[in-house]
Amino acid sequence: MTLLVVGSVALDSIFTPFGETADAIGGSAVYFSVAGSLLTKVQVVGVVGEDYPTEELEKLADRGIDWSGVERAKGESFRWKGKYSYDLQSRETLETRLGVFAAFQPKLPPRFQSAKYLFLGNIDPELQLGVLDQVTAPKLIVCDTMNYWIQSKKDELLTLLKRVDLLMVNDSEARELSGDWNIHRAARWILTQGPKRVVIKQGEHGALLMEPGRTFYVPAWPLEEVFDPTGAGDAFAGGFMAYLARRGEVTSERLRQAMVYGSAMGAFAVAGFGVRGFDGVTTADVQRRVARFSDLTHVSQAEQI
Amino acid sequence: MTLLVVGSVALDSIFTPFGETADAIGGSAVYFSVAGSLLTKVQVVGVVGEDYPTEELEKLADRGIDWSGVERAKGESFRWKGKYSYDLQSRETLETRLGVFAAFQPKLPPRFQSAKYLFLGNIDPELQLGVLDQVTAPKLIVCDTMNYWIQSKKDELLTLLKRVDLLMVNDSEARELSGDWNIHRAARWILTQGPKRVVIKQGEHGALLMEPGRTFYVPAWPLEEVFDPTGAGDAFAGGFMAYLARRGEVTSERLRQAMVYGSAMGAFAVAGFGVRGFDGVTTADVQRRVARFSDLTHVSQAEQI
Repeated sequence: MTLLVVGSVALDSIFTPFGETADAIGGSAVYFSVAGSLLTKVQVVGVVGEDYPTEELEKLADRGIDWSGVERAKGESFRWKGKYSYDLQSRETLETRLGVFAAFQPKLPPRFQSAKYLFLGNIDPELQLGVLDQVTAPKLIVCDTMNYWIQSKKDELLTLLKRVDLLMVNDSEARELSGDWNIHRAARWILTQGPKRVVIKQGEHGALLMEPGRTFYVPAWPLEEVFDPTGAGDAFAGGFMAYLARRGEVTSERLRQAMVYGSAMGAFAVAGFGVRGFDGVTTADVQRRVARFSDLTHVSQAEQI
Repeated sequence: MTLLVVGSVALDSIFTPFGETADAIGGSAVYFSVAGSLLTKVQVVGVVGEDYPTEELEKLADRGIDWSGVERAKGESFRWKGKYSYDLQSRETLETRLGVFAAFQPKLPPRFQSAKYLFLGNIDPELQLGVLDQVTAPKLIVCDTMNYWIQSKKDELLTLLKRVDLLMVNDSEARELSGDWNIHRAARWILTQGPKRVVIKQGEHGALLMEPGRTFYVPAWPLEEVFDPTGAGDAFAGGFMAYLARRGEVTSERLRQAMVYGSAMGAFAVAGFGVRGFDGVTTADVQRRVARFSDLTHVSQAEQI
């Protein structure tokens, strides 16, 4: 089934202990769609400035990503510049220039409006609500957010939550949104706000899916080499959503499988700078990694003692 | 089979956002044995001062813990005083008074020397080596250590590692010992130093077991209420070792099951101050929790897509 993502299309300048990039393509919609395209077709809605190297996006179109919902506006593209600590455990934002993203008003092309699987990337909750009004019969609505919106537009965010099926955030966002430092209480609180499910991403510690009365953990893939954590969460979301869209059903078991696909995609993302971690990665590679996840957590039930 | 632990028997004063205790019984050997006693008989070797409330240990003896290897020496007992941050994520040591622990020379009573399962709690590596010389035919030797010994007695620690089967440490200890911040590389490095297996405890993020070519993750039990993290790692070790001792075999599958028992015990430990988290906990309670772990990570293998 069709998968639609609305989010940022950016130019990232990233400094890590292993090197740096300047004005590399990035943004949540880019990471999401590159990961997702390994499993299904992805439609993207976003905005770029006149300076965006659209030939880079066109190269990605070979992966089956439909960029026709990305408008080109007058002005500069959204730029983010960040620097990671020596152990990649923390990062500092050196600069954020919104450019054309500041006036972004997502408009879905007519053929995108029937999308069944919708991912609302981390943008202003009011814009996320505006996108919801444009889709006709979604089967699964998942949204992301960030601390900036939790602080500045909490009411709008809570209004949005009443209309989404699943919130996908990282641990610090879950804590800030709920006002509770205990991640399990935070997740349970989120379930009282509208979403029937919540996914909390915890970076190298994996991710958890909470449904009413049931919690699932997927570990991160054990990586000995991590080059650039940027985009790992968006790639996780892309793998998660694309798997569900491909299967065309949203059951507890499919959601758990989708968590594994998400974790696999996150690990590909961090193995290279920007989206380079996906260079040469095939659907078969994803399958192989997913298959190997089961040994990471499998334990036969001990007999009674 | 017999399980022997050599470690600290202390009096802890603990401050958390939820309350405080003064001079409560604690120490690695106490947490280890209380957890382990839910699964098998545990023999303890340690030292206490004249001021130790041995009636507290005698109460624990009802659990089948053999305290006859704990000698009473002239002087004060080992005391630790610590304070946790509001979110329990970090702690500060306010005071450490070694007391009789400073001159501790572990001596195994004759009937302890045939122990098959041996846990060397976090004490001076030279003393840990001395204990190894007193056991006649151990089947599994597991040791713990801490940053203090990694910094001050690294050579002795590396000598010890050549003689142990499994090193069990937390993530910061694994990083410091290996000199590598990547936890998977750190674990692999440890496997080159002697132990055939390594367990790295990661607190609320669970624990990993690395064997050559194979890694296993167990999550922490999702707790909405944590009162006192003190002793969680030692309780994990107690559950892990006691399960293996009870089964009497050390296979990859038994080790994975032991990780689940360890994680279950860690969760009981943090649910109350000191060892109070184990008050009223029965072997059946442990079994029930262990049985529920499988749903936390279980996912059926997705068909090929």
